[in-house]
Amino acid sequence: MAIIVQKFGGTSVADAEKIRRAARRVIERKQAGYQVVVVASARGRQTDELVRDALELNPTPPKREMDQLLSTGEQQTVSLLAMALEAMGHKAISFTGAQIRMLTDGVYSKAQIKSIDSEFIRRELDQGRVVIVAGFQGVDERGNVTTLGRGGSDTSAVALAAAVNADECEIFTDVDGVYTTDPRVFKNAVLLEEISYDEMLEMASLGAGVMHIRSVAVGKRYGVTIRVRNSSNDNPGTIITHEVPQMEGVLVSGATIQKDMAKIGLVGVPNIPGTAAKMFARLAQAKVVVDDIIQTEISPDKANLSFMVKASDLSTAKEVAEQIKTEFNCDNLFVRDDIALISVIGVGMRSQYGVAEKMFGALAYAKVNIDSITTSEIRISCAVNREEVERALETVCLAFELDKPARQRSVT
Amino acid sequence: MAIIVQKFGGTSVADAEKIRRAARRVIERKQAGYQVVVVASARGRQTDELVRDALELNPTPPKREMDQLLSTGEQQTVSLLAMALEAMGHKAISFTGAQIRMLTDGVYSKAQIKSIDSEFIRRELDQGRVVIVAGFQGVDERGNVTTLGRGGSDTSAVALAAAVNADECEIFTDVDGVYTTDPRVFKNAVLLEEISYDEMLEMASLGAGVMHIRSVAVGKRYGVTIRVRNSSNDNPGTIITHEVPQMEGVLVSGATIQKDMAKIGLVGVPNIPGTAAKMFARLAQAKVVVDDIIQTEISPDKANLSFMVKASDLSTAKEVAEQIKTEFNCDNLFVRDDIALISVIGVGMRSQYGVAEKMFGALAYAKVNIDSITTSEIRISCAVNREEVERALETVCLAFELDKPARQRSVT
Repeated sequence: MAIIVQKFGGTSVADAEKIRRAARRVIERKQAGYQVVVVASARGRQTDELVRDALELNPTPPKREMDQLLSTGEQQTVSLLAMALEAMGHKAISFTGAQIRMLTDGVYSKAQIKSIDSEFIRRELDQGRVVIVAGFQGVDERGNVTTLGRGGSDTSAVALAAAVNADECEIFTDVDGVYTTDPRVFKNAVLLEEISYDEMLEMASLGAGVMHIRSVAVGKRYGVTIRVRNSSNDNPGTIITHEVPQMEGVLVSGATIQKDMAKIGLVGVPNIPGTAAKMFARLAQAKVVVDDIIQTEISPDKANLSFMVKASDLSTAKEVAEQIKTEFNCDNLFVRDDIALISVIGVGMRSQYGVAEKMFGALAYAKVNIDSITTSEIRISCAVNREEVERALETVCLAFELDKPARQRSVT
Repeated sequence: MAIIVQKFGGTSVADAEKIRRAARRVIERKQAGYQVVVVASARGRQTDELVRDALELNPTPPKREMDQLLSTGEQQTVSLLAMALEAMGHKAISFTGAQIRMLTDGVYSKAQIKSIDSEFIRRELDQGRVVIVAGFQGVDERGNVTTLGRGGSDTSAVALAAAVNADECEIFTDVDGVYTTDPRVFKNAVLLEEISYDEMLEMASLGAGVMHIRSVAVGKRYGVTIRVRNSSNDNPGTIITHEVPQMEGVLVSGATIQKDMAKIGLVGVPNIPGTAAKMFARLAQAKVVVDDIIQTEISPDKANLSFMVKASDLSTAKEVAEQIKTEFNCDNLFVRDDIALISVIGVGMRSQYGVAEKMFGALAYAKVNIDSITTSEIRISCAVNREEVERALETVCLAFELDKPARQRSVT
């Protein structure tokens, strides 16, 4: 019998009425002949409230205890959802992460899943029950509760879908799916019918908030078909799946902007092996995420080095860079705190040419100055002035016809 | 190293300030050289709120899911209490019932404890940690969460005290301890310094609400010294322990009243074996608790049979009695719905005489009519008119000098 995994986020189970609505979604799939595994998050703002309760008692709560505390939110949702399904005449059983042996490493607050007892779940499914699993949580080998960190429930759902070999993993959220770009900035953005894992990974890492990057990575690794859809309507949503030939026919699938970026540059860095490594190790230690590193040689023994960080990390990053400047006797340090990134993403770039030219042309036409450029196999990013980035997005979207469904575009 | 178990009820951990106060109680004991195991209930009205959330979705929620849901309340308290202790500089670790293998049978909502992994707890204690265990909950052999029902956290605490062989089990509550009688009715009631398990069991079954009967029974079975005390002051409270010789010197330790009782009588019941058995079996099936059964022969082949039930169970009990009257062709059925019970309790009754006479004398002096009398080895109960029972309690308390500490009484 085919299995489907359905994941409901916190806003989709925020109150009794929404829990009943989620239950009806489950029943629809069951009546369509599927065995259903459900993953649910904590209700509405419950997790935030628990965090507030914790911080009131301890400004730096031990992570083990924080995980023990926060995991209760999901446990409440799954038992309530099971009750709702029973009230509607369907057999259901709820499980915590520990109960299905969602085994993780022992890294509290951002644990990695190691294995899942799928036989246990299958036995319950084969007895005609809907199996409802608390998302976001697991258990380490010693029985301690762990949580998976940001995007954890999505990751639970995709990992479960892989473990039980589900036909599809439906992620219910409060938007219709994945758009060509952020509809709040470019109002003519269109919904994507499908997108490849690699494109979604790039989009997620560039700030498209629909899916967390970890869950997409798990989906890619195990080949889980993910469908992102709206919990409050019947739209089919967006399918995230393997790259298929027709995707390559599309030049660009989506565009993103990251507004609050900053850039740090070191001028005249001596060409001594390990200079850059030392700096990035220290930044990692300070938990600063670094993007778009550019290094260029300016003389046989000196180079310029620049990189981007989130604006909120700028002061920490600047301190580290200043230490390096002194230690290695660099010529100069500069900082730009008014930078934003605009990126286009598409697996089509692998086999087609002209994407960069089209993008630079569009930006030039709109008189947007490009500070720096970085590319990956399926992405081109340009750093621009923060105040110009929304205008830049509109120009780029129109150039790549991201206001039209892929099959209606002329530029393929 | 000596171990002490401390139990904090819902009102003692209702908010951050109260959790900190509980933490300070723990630290006092730790600094006095004890290893401390803490058992905590859900915060304030959390359990009630979860029950309300459940009933909104399902008027008859599956008991397994209800236990899964309700156990989260205690889990939240224990992790928060651990955080509070850490913030105050003391190592602490929280556990759910499942994590310490508080193994129970599979009877959801009123599970019985079968075993506890005390080695696990001792290891944590030996590492200098305060061990904080979620009360009220356990786990069955298949990993399902179970709850222990009413008074469950007290039972968890006393069972843990037995398992780790603790010196004492402190039960923190919102009163100073166990009184000779209900101070809301008899304002000169005095606090008992100590009381035997048997007396406490009788008092608890007669409606003295301080301790639940199950936890006292566990304490008696394993010889756990229980101390009931107020979480908001430093009074020593009441010790519940084995009967000691000086207890027998005290005629009566306490008095209780149960106001909302009703009495059912069957007149002229044929003396056929099994008549009474059949009726009480049916009452048990209907979950009616029966008290004070009196049977008296009125002729060689007929008897009268009466018993007491809670007023709220009267209509159910009456139906059962009417069936029996018809089936066995009894002469008559009568019901009194204006009855109350007054009881005195004391292990001293075992070895001393005159308790009944003194009680009847006091009631006669106060012109309180006695409807019926039942006794056990350490208890005498009289059924009286409900509207006279508070006056009866006052008279009886004065007769037995329950307004004075035991050692100051003349009637011993």
